[in-house]
Amino acid sequence: MEKITSAQNSRIKAYAKLHTRKEREHTGLFLIEGEHLLEEAEKENMVETVLTDTPDQYQLKNMIEVTPEIMKKLSSNVSAIHLIGVCHKKQMKIEAPHRLLLLDDIQDPGNFGTLIRTAVSFGFDGVVCSRDTVDLYNEKTIRSTQGAMFHMPVVYADLSAYLDDLHKDGFTVIATALRNAVPMHEIEKKEKMAFILGNEGNGVSLSLQNMADERLFIEMNGFESLNVAVAGGIVMYQYHQ
Amino acid sequence: MEKITSAQNSRIKAYAKLHTRKEREHTGLFLIEGEHLLEEAEKENMVETVLTDTPDQYQLKNMIEVTPEIMKKLSSNVSAIHLIGVCHKKQMKIEAPHRLLLLDDIQDPGNFGTLIRTAVSFGFDGVVCSRDTVDLYNEKTIRSTQGAMFHMPVVYADLSAYLDDLHKDGFTVIATALRNAVPMHEIEKKEKMAFILGNEGNGVSLSLQNMADERLFIEMNGFESLNVAVAGGIVMYQYHQ
Repeated sequence: MEKITSAQNSRIKAYAKLHTRKEREHTGLFLIEGEHLLEEAEKENMVETVLTDTPDQYQLKNMIEVTPEIMKKLSSNVSAIHLIGVCHKKQMKIEAPHRLLLLDDIQDPGNFGTLIRTAVSFGFDGVVCSRDTVDLYNEKTIRSTQGAMFHMPVVYADLSAYLDDLHKDGFTVIATALRNAVPMHEIEKKEKMAFILGNEGNGVSLSLQNMADERLFIEMNGFESLNVAVAGGIVMYQYHQ
Repeated sequence: MEKITSAQNSRIKAYAKLHTRKEREHTGLFLIEGEHLLEEAEKENMVETVLTDTPDQYQLKNMIEVTPEIMKKLSSNVSAIHLIGVCHKKQMKIEAPHRLLLLDDIQDPGNFGTLIRTAVSFGFDGVVCSRDTVDLYNEKTIRSTQGAMFHMPVVYADLSAYLDDLHKDGFTVIATALRNAVPMHEIEKKEKMAFILGNEGNGVSLSLQNMADERLFIEMNGFESLNVAVAGGIVMYQYHQ
């Protein structure tokens, strides 16, 4: 087995750069941490190289032994991690969808990952993100998906153009909103539905709200607001197939 | 206005220690950051001292001017914060409840804070936490509540003993579970209901599950699991009054 002991090794330095979105986009590579995520990525044939500081414990393809210092340098986790995978991104395609989640500029990677995880749990067919949504391959996004990102096509698109296409395809598009909206229990299930959730601070942009067929609010006690991942969970539960 | 310029000042050093749970418990004090949280804490008369590095911009009681370096030392935020409040904890009491959230060893402060925020949004009367639940006064918990912690009694208790009392008080106690449980739509609203949510890794402990009147699962597509704050949101929406 190959062994790297210097944190100054050129490959290690290249991997360390994958903590930035720019470098992930440039190389098409990203890092994942821990056994569970590696198993899920392996099923999709996305793992190029596995780094470990405890090679005796694992039997995986393309393993490189490295030092604990190198693991620490590459990990975004506070506790010690013994497996890091270098993966290549995969082209994802949403096929014959009936339930879609549309994300308008979600900024928090924890919210983003949790929404993807919930979308898998409720059988949604894909997640479509505005271009300014946080990166799918951000370490915190990946961690929050709990592996669900390997089971859900997630694509980035211009949402206004995407909405036009959805309308042509017979979709009912629902924007979540706090004002001038219909309570959720009054909106019935339809065959093809897409739900827009908005940015943590500003909600769904007005232009997308105006393009939607309905504006939905979740009935609450008093004028409060929900975390976007919670709101998404309630909506996806309500309309799952 | 009093002014402190040295990060070695004894009061500043004492405030910096409030980042640990131990010191918060010892002193009964905790820190909050930003204008919104300060306003909410002020309404409850919980603010003892306000620290700022931009005193001209605010008119608040008991303000002390400090340097940006001191703000940085006391803040848990990556971006610059210009207001920090030193607050005292308040004895909280749940009065005449009809809807309660019971948390069994929730570990993630973001989940905990989000659950409190959601409980306010759906008119719950209180949150009861097992002793091993993460600290309410953790900076991340506070941030995730978005100020909701000042509108919701949150208490720590031995949950088994608490469940005994709830039963005597006519409560129906529902534990969330993934196995051997009833689908949520089959469980009807009752006058007094308490819902137990479990630890992120292990769910609700078996002993508490056995003490509950019902075990509830959220219907999903396939055997998946939900983030606990999302699961809590779905359950609280379903049963809010």
